[in-house]
Amino acid sequence: MDLADLTPDALTLLGRAAYIQLIIFENLSTAVAAAPSAESKDTLGRVAAAALARQNGLRLEIERHGAEPGAAMQPFMAEIDAYQRATQGADWFEMLVSCHVTAGFLDNFFARLAAGLPAEAANRLKAVYATDAASELLAKEIRAAIEEQPQLSSRLAMWGRRLVGDTMLIARASLASSSNLVSDEARIEPVFTELIAAHTRRMDSLGLTA
Amino acid sequence: MDLADLTPDALTLLGRAAYIQLIIFENLSTAVAAAPSAESKDTLGRVAAAALARQNGLRLEIERHGAEPGAAMQPFMAEIDAYQRATQGADWFEMLVSCHVTAGFLDNFFARLAAGLPAEAANRLKAVYATDAASELLAKEIRAAIEEQPQLSSRLAMWGRRLVGDTMLIARASLASSSNLVSDEARIEPVFTELIAAHTRRMDSLGLTA
Repeated sequence: MDLADLTPDALTLLGRAAYIQLIIFENLSTAVAAAPSAESKDTLGRVAAAALARQNGLRLEIERHGAEPGAAMQPFMAEIDAYQRATQGADWFEMLVSCHVTAGFLDNFFARLAAGLPAEAANRLKAVYATDAASELLAKEIRAAIEEQPQLSSRLAMWGRRLVGDTMLIARASLASSSNLVSDEARIEPVFTELIAAHTRRMDSLGLTA
Repeated sequence: MDLADLTPDALTLLGRAAYIQLIIFENLSTAVAAAPSAESKDTLGRVAAAALARQNGLRLEIERHGAEPGAAMQPFMAEIDAYQRATQGADWFEMLVSCHVTAGFLDNFFARLAAGLPAEAANRLKAVYATDAASELLAKEIRAAIEEQPQLSSRLAMWGRRLVGDTMLIARASLASSSNLVSDEARIEPVFTELIAAHTRRMDSLGLTA
């Protein structure tokens, strides 16, 4: 179960991964700004710091590959900004679920994809994605919100399904393709099955139906 | 030239300082989101990470004093949120100047105020405020913008004057007062003279008239 020749070249992968990590950070910092209490702000600030630490790991890896982080990310800006707009959420609760669900899925996906790079880079990126994303803090915040307003559940469950659809599209757009689309599909499918299973567990742990 | 008995008790000082640092971070992250290029986003992300690292130092100090960071910050939220709204800036350029000018002034101020705490806490906070705020990255971004559009100078200079006024008010509100307002004033004045001199140098280094 690996993505082997569907792994894009290192700088394409890193540029996308780093820009997506910036977007994950931006979403979290929007949530920091919208937080209803100093305590929530404080918690979300810690999650945002974790996202920025990962982003810094990715930008350092871009520099190790001899490129400027800004230049490496720029080609993917329009596409990923559009994804961001579509997945921002209409209120504080949807915003939190977006942060948790999209970052969880995309971090899994890019960690997996990075494993297909040459060994040294792959190992460094493994370490980057192994750092604590502080996602448990976010999950706790969401569970507390749902506990307080149980009627949120069905709306947030639906929002989660919408998110995973858009997120799968942006993940698939990050794959290279070979000349044989049928064999590509055979290779992609089990990986996405696994990513979706992880997504389902993530939603379960929030008390939401995937 | 110290603020001695105008230093509030440790948790009041820390709660304010930590919440202000969160606001500095929020302003930077709004600038990350508004950045016109991936390169600017990347640069501002690094400045935001530096602000969050300081904020983390302050929250740890709150925990060392036996309090919860959220609870310690909460009492200052309304006042500081109002300050934030007044100093956000109307566009990308004003936003950058706000981030640079308000963080520069307030970091100086709180570093100075923290020196009045008992020695151990004072030393730890000295280390927190001695970390690199990455403000040179921000200054570079502003200088580049002004170089490209020299007609921005007078508007941004005026904006800087407005900012320093509002920022002095929030700084003064952070001081305790003794029973003798005249002697308080005599103590405060030289400190603010020094902070304003630092502000003037900061504006100068941007090529703006303070």
